[in-house]
Amino acid sequence: MSLREECGVAGVWDHPGAGGQVINSLYALQHRGQESAGLAVTDGRQVRGHKGMGLVAEVFSRDRFRELAGAAAIGHVRYSTTGASLLTNAQPLVVRYHRGGLALAHNGNLVNARRLRERLEEEGSIFQTTSDTEVVAHLIARAGDRDLPEAAGWALEQVEGAYALLMLSEDRLLAARDPAGIRPLSIGRLGDTVVFASETCALDALGAVFWRDVAPGEMVVAGREGLVSYRVFPPRPTNLCAFEFIYFARPDSDLDGMNVHAVRKELGRALFQEAPVEADLVTGVPDSSISAAAGYAEAAGIPYELGLVKNRYIGRTFIQPGQDKRSQGVRLKLNALRKVLEGRRVVLVDDSIVRGTTSRHIVQLLRDSGAREVHLRISSPPYRYPCFYGIDTSATSELVAAGRQVEDIRQLVGADSLAFLSSAGLLEVIGTDRCMACFTGEYPVRIPAGTGKHSLEERVC
Amino acid sequence: MSLREECGVAGVWDHPGAGGQVINSLYALQHRGQESAGLAVTDGRQVRGHKGMGLVAEVFSRDRFRELAGAAAIGHVRYSTTGASLLTNAQPLVVRYHRGGLALAHNGNLVNARRLRERLEEEGSIFQTTSDTEVVAHLIARAGDRDLPEAAGWALEQVEGAYALLMLSEDRLLAARDPAGIRPLSIGRLGDTVVFASETCALDALGAVFWRDVAPGEMVVAGREGLVSYRVFPPRPTNLCAFEFIYFARPDSDLDGMNVHAVRKELGRALFQEAPVEADLVTGVPDSSISAAAGYAEAAGIPYELGLVKNRYIGRTFIQPGQDKRSQGVRLKLNALRKVLEGRRVVLVDDSIVRGTTSRHIVQLLRDSGAREVHLRISSPPYRYPCFYGIDTSATSELVAAGRQVEDIRQLVGADSLAFLSSAGLLEVIGTDRCMACFTGEYPVRIPAGTGKHSLEERVC
Amino acid sequence: MSLREECGVAGVWDHPGAGGQVINSLYALQHRGQESAGLAVTDGRQVRGHKGMGLVAEVFSRDRFRELAGAAAIGHVRYSTTGASLLTNAQPLVVRYHRGGLALAHNGNLVNARRLRERLEEEGSIFQTTSDTEVVAHLIARAGDRDLPEAAGWALEQVEGAYALLMLSEDRLLAARDPAGIRPLSIGRLGDTVVFASETCALDALGAVFWRDVAPGEMVVAGREGLVSYRVFPPRPTNLCAFEFIYFARPDSDLDGMNVHAVRKELGRALFQEAPVEADLVTGVPDSSISAAAGYAEAAGIPYELGLVKNRYIGRTFIQPGQDKRSQGVRLKLNALRKVLEGRRVVLVDDSIVRGTTSRHIVQLLRDSGAREVHLRISSPPYRYPCFYGIDTSATSELVAAGRQVEDIRQLVGADSLAFLSSAGLLEVIGTDRCMACFTGEYPVRIPAGTGKHSLEERVC
Amino acid sequence: MSLREECGVAGVWDHPGAGGQVINSLYALQHRGQESAGLAVTDGRQVRGHKGMGLVAEVFSRDRFRELAGAAAIGHVRYSTTGASLLTNAQPLVVRYHRGGLALAHNGNLVNARRLRERLEEEGSIFQTTSDTEVVAHLIARAGDRDLPEAAGWALEQVEGAYALLMLSEDRLLAARDPAGIRPLSIGRLGDTVVFASETCALDALGAVFWRDVAPGEMVVAGREGLVSYRVFPPRPTNLCAFEFIYFARPDSDLDGMNVHAVRKELGRALFQEAPVEADLVTGVPDSSISAAAGYAEAAGIPYELGLVKNRYIGRTFIQPGQDKRSQGVRLKLNALRKVLEGRRVVLVDDSIVRGTTSRHIVQLLRDSGAREVHLRISSPPYRYPCFYGIDTSATSELVAAGRQVEDIRQLVGADSLAFLSSAGLLEVIGTDRCMACFTGEYPVRIPAGTGKHSLEERVC
Repeated sequence: MSLREECGVAGVWDHPGAGGQVINSLYALQHRGQESAGLAVTDGRQVRGHKGMGLVAEVFSRDRFRELAGAAAIGHVRYSTTGASLLTNAQPLVVRYHRGGLALAHNGNLVNARRLRERLEEEGSIFQTTSDTEVVAHLIARAGDRDLPEAAGWALEQVEGAYALLMLSEDRLLAARDPAGIRPLSIGRLGDTVVFASETCALDALGAVFWRDVAPGEMVVAGREGLVSYRVFPPRPTNLCAFEFIYFARPDSDLDGMNVHAVRKELGRALFQEAPVEADLVTGVPDSSISAAAGYAEAAGIPYELGLVKNRYIGRTFIQPGQDKRSQGVRLKLNALRKVLEGRRVVLVDDSIVRGTTSRHIVQLLRDSGAREVHLRISSPPYRYPCFYGIDTSATSELVAAGRQVEDIRQLVGADSLAFLSSAGLLEVIGTDRCMACFTGEYPVRIPAGTGKHSLEERVC
Repeated sequence: MSLREECGVAGVWDHPGAGGQVINSLYALQHRGQESAGLAVTDGRQVRGHKGMGLVAEVFSRDRFRELAGAAAIGHVRYSTTGASLLTNAQPLVVRYHRGGLALAHNGNLVNARRLRERLEEEGSIFQTTSDTEVVAHLIARAGDRDLPEAAGWALEQVEGAYALLMLSEDRLLAARDPAGIRPLSIGRLGDTVVFASETCALDALGAVFWRDVAPGEMVVAGREGLVSYRVFPPRPTNLCAFEFIYFARPDSDLDGMNVHAVRKELGRALFQEAPVEADLVTGVPDSSISAAAGYAEAAGIPYELGLVKNRYIGRTFIQPGQDKRSQGVRLKLNALRKVLEGRRVVLVDDSIVRGTTSRHIVQLLRDSGAREVHLRISSPPYRYPCFYGIDTSATSELVAAGRQVEDIRQLVGADSLAFLSSAGLLEVIGTDRCMACFTGEYPVRIPAGTGKHSLEERVC
Repeated sequence: MSLREECGVAGVWDHPGAGGQVINSLYALQHRGQESAGLAVTDGRQVRGHKGMGLVAEVFSRDRFRELAGAAAIGHVRYSTTGASLLTNAQPLVVRYHRGGLALAHNGNLVNARRLRERLEEEGSIFQTTSDTEVVAHLIARAGDRDLPEAAGWALEQVEGAYALLMLSEDRLLAARDPAGIRPLSIGRLGDTVVFASETCALDALGAVFWRDVAPGEMVVAGREGLVSYRVFPPRPTNLCAFEFIYFARPDSDLDGMNVHAVRKELGRALFQEAPVEADLVTGVPDSSISAAAGYAEAAGIPYELGLVKNRYIGRTFIQPGQDKRSQGVRLKLNALRKVLEGRRVVLVDDSIVRGTTSRHIVQLLRDSGAREVHLRISSPPYRYPCFYGIDTSATSELVAAGRQVEDIRQLVGADSLAFLSSAGLLEVIGTDRCMACFTGEYPVRIPAGTGKHSLEERVC
Repeated sequence: MSLREECGVAGVWDHPGAGGQVINSLYALQHRGQESAGLAVTDGRQVRGHKGMGLVAEVFSRDRFRELAGAAAIGHVRYSTTGASLLTNAQPLVVRYHRGGLALAHNGNLVNARRLRERLEEEGSIFQTTSDTEVVAHLIARAGDRDLPEAAGWALEQVEGAYALLMLSEDRLLAARDPAGIRPLSIGRLGDTVVFASETCALDALGAVFWRDVAPGEMVVAGREGLVSYRVFPPRPTNLCAFEFIYFARPDSDLDGMNVHAVRKELGRALFQEAPVEADLVTGVPDSSISAAAGYAEAAGIPYELGLVKNRYIGRTFIQPGQDKRSQGVRLKLNALRKVLEGRRVVLVDDSIVRGTTSRHIVQLLRDSGAREVHLRISSPPYRYPCFYGIDTSATSELVAAGRQVEDIRQLVGADSLAFLSSAGLLEVIGTDRCMACFTGEYPVRIPAGTGKHSLEERVC
């Protein structure tokens, strides 16, 4: 539960208040990134952008809506980088080049960005950000006389990695997804309006009806001629990120046609089948593990109980006073219900263990609140390998499961028993065409030798 | 679910970082008030305060902690008033008078405040706020040569209504509760440190152990001589607010020794006993009705499902763009899971119906998402009478249940069936010594004729 | 030049946008106080206020204007206090009492405030600020059945000290000046509208025409019956603050019918008569001493030159980086013109010397920029005694002239020669009925024994 | 007095707190631009920047200083553009390219920027700002294997126009000035530290000693090898902007070895020689025309008087309430001294007339304040042609002197008489090698046909 997603993207084509609709979509995608938010709008003549640090509600005041009028727009929410150049890296990136203006919003990570950037720099390009997205913009600008869709296709053929990418020119909105389909991207319709979003919950927020996903390797172009589909890459095996199902996506979103909450509940059921335990109650770590915990409880026939409550108001601006920060920090964020837990044997369901520290604190919190036994059940396999496709995992050395047996981890977190869902069990539920790299080390898109966690410094999204 | 609580209070005695500890308590009480936050601290020589508009995290920066050093402190969070004088009414109120400095933090409402204030004004007093609390401060200042505990007792004898009241002087912290015990106030211990808080979840946040509640009519005084209990009023029947159980308190708090989550689950069970219905799934309105919904589902043997998801990021600063605000507003805050609901007969559990508009929107949202039937079950009786004890209900004319039969309400909200928990069923679970005024119109503390919703204008807390 | 004024007050009666007009007046009085600004307005039914920390332009956004509608208003700007309770002490103070609402805005200092406050506290009053103004409010509230003008008169009879005081009720605006007339207060007219302000430059800003000053000991009441004058005190010798002429007032204001710039030029002329010196050029310390320097130059027949330039942008928010702050700080605020000064004998005119450090830095700056001789001429007598009437001077121990001969001071500041204008010379120009306490120690209003710099702690205005 | 400068640049080489020293320089250059401020620093390994909207003091908090550590830095202040992309265009521009990092800060305007940009876009470049500076960065990046000084020289050979340009890499600071020397750029020394700044007043602020100006067409490079001078262009006639003398530069700065205040005084003297008038007093429009007015008065033997006072606190954040904004706006900014003006014949000296509206308001203000005659004297020739070299003048159609005779202008502004200083008279004082384009239409650097006021849209600096 301490992984940090990535980013979220949304786009609206052919709506008189496209900017406002994109902002509403970004509200629904806020869980995918809370550090910066941005919008680019076109009124048919010019592409203009506004972005800022903070939540969507902080970045967009009523004044900004009015300024950014137009019938097409794209937007972006992003997770945090460090350093002084934070705002510079916020998206959408807006550039001007020989065809006019272009805005880009990107969720994912390009594994060959560094190499492409070096080549571009050698050819005389300058870079003002450290984001992959700028590499794509340069490639498009260097595509010569091709029109924008062709230029974009030509550019995408050169990049490798994971992307859900939206691009906006004065007269077109382009939505592309990497050939492995690692990051999700859906299309919805609301009358004549077309909506693109990282997750379907953003379509719901606008009252739009889900139409279909952008296919892996496909680029969908909205323009005067309507919607046109380009196959940038031939069909190949696809690999939607398993962690979108397990943790990132909102429970009310559908991924590949499957509802995320329902999937998580199934994961909980499968987890019970693999690792049953005698206990008095099942509880989940809020909010992400509630569904899996309910599934475990139902399958086990053990009552599901509210054992932990999360403080809804401990957010980004939280400053904790006092000395004994470590353990009190957890107590401020999570509280355990002694009346529920006292003297009971508890199954604690969590979606994953990354560094292990939070798990240890929660197990201890349950014991301090009277739990007689704490059996930790994880609704995914051990997280052992870094992600190069857009998730900000710790370095391998910080992953508690890397190079450790389950029993070692159990001792570290202090649980009476510990079990992870198996890879097979996971795939049984979410389907086999998934990216499981963080569990298995099998990367569907080849990682160049010497690639660090991120292909460009300070890169997160 | 559209009632607005009141306020929350917290106090810490004998801790080197008392101010920081009170702020941590206020984080845990933030659900009781999100408009303003304040702190008053004493270092033994002076009582100083700081307050501001916004969440605890916004009002207290790291700098403020350092400034407000001292071994005793009280704090306050408050819900919103209207008008320009918002900050003026924030608490704690800090005054200077003949005995020195005094800070007051108050949750509740005094029904005779207007009369007392008129009397004080006639005697030459000036008022700088519109809060009841200032009335109490004046009375204490006019208590003559009595020492502070006696002066406070003398003042409390004159006020009528509901209060959980903390007072801080240079060398004492006083905690008082009205004789009917309408508002809750608990005491915890952490080594030598004594903690007072509106709810026990704030004790947990500090790692303090619950000791006991301040008794109705009692005033507990912490000072050099330790903790001293004063019986300001003789024992009488008490009436803790039923709505604290139903809606206000955090599920991880205990009220009168009962865990709030467990109580709510029991209310759901009782609701099923009174109003069963054949259905495919049970779902609750997040977050407050989840426990009751789970109880209903368990009792009914119908699966509990996640039918509605709440956007965690739609908060106070939310500005909604676009035209069709009304219905889209609900969609931005709540989303329904079509995959879960489609074609199903749904029991929707909510804790209360106040104005009815939100209920109508949610019922419609479920239908739009494919629910075949929507059976609304409310885990409390119809809310028919205004509260004069510190809850910001609408005027009687706005209460949808006032003067309406259940069938009328059902038609208004558009449900297939509607049932409320009976008063008897409610009291069965929460105990008989409760304030049920909003359901029955029987006010445990007499309301003076001509009293409006609040005894003083702009008054909320 | 390091004295800190006091405060400024303004009031407008009978204007549809009274609040906006007061704010415009406060812009013109901003030099009298830059720490906080506030406004109170009545619409005939209610007195409402808004105040905040910062410049007028920072405190009043466009939104605030709209909220504060009404036909009468008073406002206040204030200089800084220290401590956490800054906003609490900002003015106008708005209270409610038995006659309704009352707002007070005060420039000056009451020397018997502490005694009055102790008496009021003994009688059961509570205080929420540390300002004298609250004492006046209490007295008015305790005036019994008298109507407001009588009550205010009765209250003023009890206070001693310096005040220009504006008070606003639902239906009246009162303007009072202490019997010695220490602080200035003028009346202007603009059609039917009546304007009150600390200085006439604020009348000019509104396009109002100066009508007359509020007389010492007079209270002017604007109400339904028009303007009514009350003589609260019998005529007595008056003592307008000499320092208003010398330093505080804006050069475009008139005090007692005399233009401040013209007065300062005369002071410069008189200073030359008393202390001529052979030199090549005269220069003044900007901005306050430019007029006196010009007068000196004209009288001496020596060219006036721009020897020092002040950085207009070094204001309250200035944070200076780097180590060598002391001397660089002066260089950032003031720059000397080497081309003008090099090899020249310079007369440097300043209006006063308080602590002496700034003078020393400036003399050194001139020498570093090539001045061959620096003759310092001060257009007022040595400042030797603290002010108890509303000016924030340092304690006596910090006044460089207290207990020092002119020659000693000359050595400290490093000038080739030093001369002050004599008291007689000063009075010759500004008139004899002035408060000269800071120069002579003769206080026109008796200071109670044991009075500190300010009669109440943290008190400045 | 309604021209808006341009920008200011400063750079510091070899100082342990270079960033802080540059910020101090920017304080001194704040008059050259108040909309945005920025800084770029190198610690030898990386070039990092921070910029923001607002005054220097608003953009740089204490935290920022600490983050931006390094021994070399450049900074920039800028005047306003319009549109949403304000922050994007703030400087320094920081880019990364094949040699590493590069920051650029530019005062001036490139007349062939549009053509260069089109060529670069055709070659595949993308632009993220609308500033000329980005064009220079692209050219440098495309200079192939040349080292940075050679690459910069190669780039500068291609651009035409006016520039004082500072560039910072990890290990060098470059300072270049256009071959006509239109914008000023000086070098100072402080021990081993080298300081570059648009004006010498910024050298004074650091205590640095003026060493020499960067010569027109020269590029000075500070690096490990010390200071190296490159002659990018052969010597040619130079043309320092005449308006720097007349209006822009601070009076305490020296331009081409001449003190600006002394020059302005001479301009006043010359103006009297050309256009004497019988009058009772001379006054100047503050602050820029005070020196010229003093010169006129001295030459005429007429007393110089303070006739107008400027409100020091009416700044960028000023929001004016009320209806009658037009005339009241001037009264809030400037006040006239009736006591000084009444019944007198007044010579009003101003430095220039651009649109004429402000002049008309001031003349009227003097008459309203009792002036019997108002003789307007302008210390420069009629401003008739737009500037293409970095000054934000109005379009030709808005220049009141364009196509109008002096008598027409006199009638428009309402003065009793009006005279401008002649071009010959101006050149007599400031020297003949100046840019007089705005007066004569003779542009020292050819303006490409079809060039608008600015070569790139939204371009100001």
